[in-house]
Amino acid sequence: MTALPGIPLIASGMDLSAVLLDALAQAGRALTHGDVVVVTSKIVSKAEGRSVRLNDVQPSAEALRLAVVTDKDPRIVELVLRESTAVSRASRGVLVVRHRLGFVSANAGIDQSNVAGGEQTALLLPLDPDASARAISDALLERTGARVGIVISDSHGRPFRMGNVGVAIGAARLPALRDLRGEPDLYGRALKITLQAYADMIASASALLTGEGAEGLPAVLIRGLPEYSSHNPASTLNRPLEQDLYR
Amino acid sequence: MTALPGIPLIASGMDLSAVLLDALAQAGRALTHGDVVVVTSKIVSKAEGRSVRLNDVQPSAEALRLAVVTDKDPRIVELVLRESTAVSRASRGVLVVRHRLGFVSANAGIDQSNVAGGEQTALLLPLDPDASARAISDALLERTGARVGIVISDSHGRPFRMGNVGVAIGAARLPALRDLRGEPDLYGRALKITLQAYADMIASASALLTGEGAEGLPAVLIRGLPEYSSHNPASTLNRPLEQDLYR
Repeated sequence: MTALPGIPLIASGMDLSAVLLDALAQAGRALTHGDVVVVTSKIVSKAEGRSVRLNDVQPSAEALRLAVVTDKDPRIVELVLRESTAVSRASRGVLVVRHRLGFVSANAGIDQSNVAGGEQTALLLPLDPDASARAISDALLERTGARVGIVISDSHGRPFRMGNVGVAIGAARLPALRDLRGEPDLYGRALKITLQAYADMIASASALLTGEGAEGLPAVLIRGLPEYSSHNPASTLNRPLEQDLYR
Repeated sequence: MTALPGIPLIASGMDLSAVLLDALAQAGRALTHGDVVVVTSKIVSKAEGRSVRLNDVQPSAEALRLAVVTDKDPRIVELVLRESTAVSRASRGVLVVRHRLGFVSANAGIDQSNVAGGEQTALLLPLDPDASARAISDALLERTGARVGIVISDSHGRPFRMGNVGVAIGAARLPALRDLRGEPDLYGRALKITLQAYADMIASASALLTGEGAEGLPAVLIRGLPEYSSHNPASTLNRPLEQDLYR
């Protein structure tokens, strides 16, 4: 695993595949089949122009009500509601929603940190991160000839555990969710644990290098993982509502 | 990250630090300060003799009732109840409990796969995995002079997301939970994301190599992570009950 150095601050409209290739060149790495590149959702959002000026946001009555409950900026709450399909939990300092992309997360992944413009700007998640991952992977294939897996990572809390971990909100050219049903264990019996959140584990691994802090390392190259022939997007990691015992 | 080769099947009473040093020697690696070794809970449990013969287990009335609800072996349900402090969710195929160690997981982490004796044996989690991690780290320090972080990993499902990921149920000589409060972001403002489940991310990273399958790779060496001076055990990753919005 190598954190890619020298990635500039990303502005709307920048070509992330070109940025990644520049950074890989600086790191002295050429892409090869089976490499995985993890990119934080933050730079994908910035490249896609997903920042919103808070002064342009008019909170609804529901946003104003939830802003009091959660002690949050009503304009941020308004953006959270626009980006989500349901509120899961709201209490002081906590606003957990079901995101329009299908996962459950705090504040719909909306981020004020590390955004140019400071408190006056919020950054929404990419419109369709699986499509973003596919576009980056396709561009890298076209420019280098290498089939490269892409994970677009974010940072999520968990209901029962303290602290954030990396999760995949976008993925291409790898199995975001691996189905291990029927694989034999050491004694030849079928495994009972059946599904592996492969892309989430890749996102967590890369977050060991990118951290949450000031390092400015928004992309990681992972080399040496197996190449899987069956691929599926990060949306397969969302537990279907009818299987959710904790909504 | 290097999966350690040649680890034998572990039996009760075996010295895991000696086993790890043998495997490291086979991999041509000598431990140095700041290395992290991830060990699956399964081999720790086996070394600690935590397997139970199911024929010796007498299910209680409550276990018999829950076995019908969940469609599970009543003797396994009995063991799950003995290992837990509360049932969180029970339905067909699902028995999620609060483990006596403080985390919430399916089947109290009790495992029938990869255990000698097949269906007739169940493997409980280590009695005190943080203490187990400390003991392994202390033994490695004594034998090699290197201060090595230890993570004892398990595999957990998640309420809102499909698939299992690696989690840390034991940790020593590293910060299982990192507190980033107050670290500046790229623009010099304080970060809002404050807690990082560092040992869980290490466990997920190593699970990319160990998998869930037949590979028989229960230990991973991770080199190149920063050395942190402040340490805390995996028990700090358990969300306190009063902060649990989803119990």
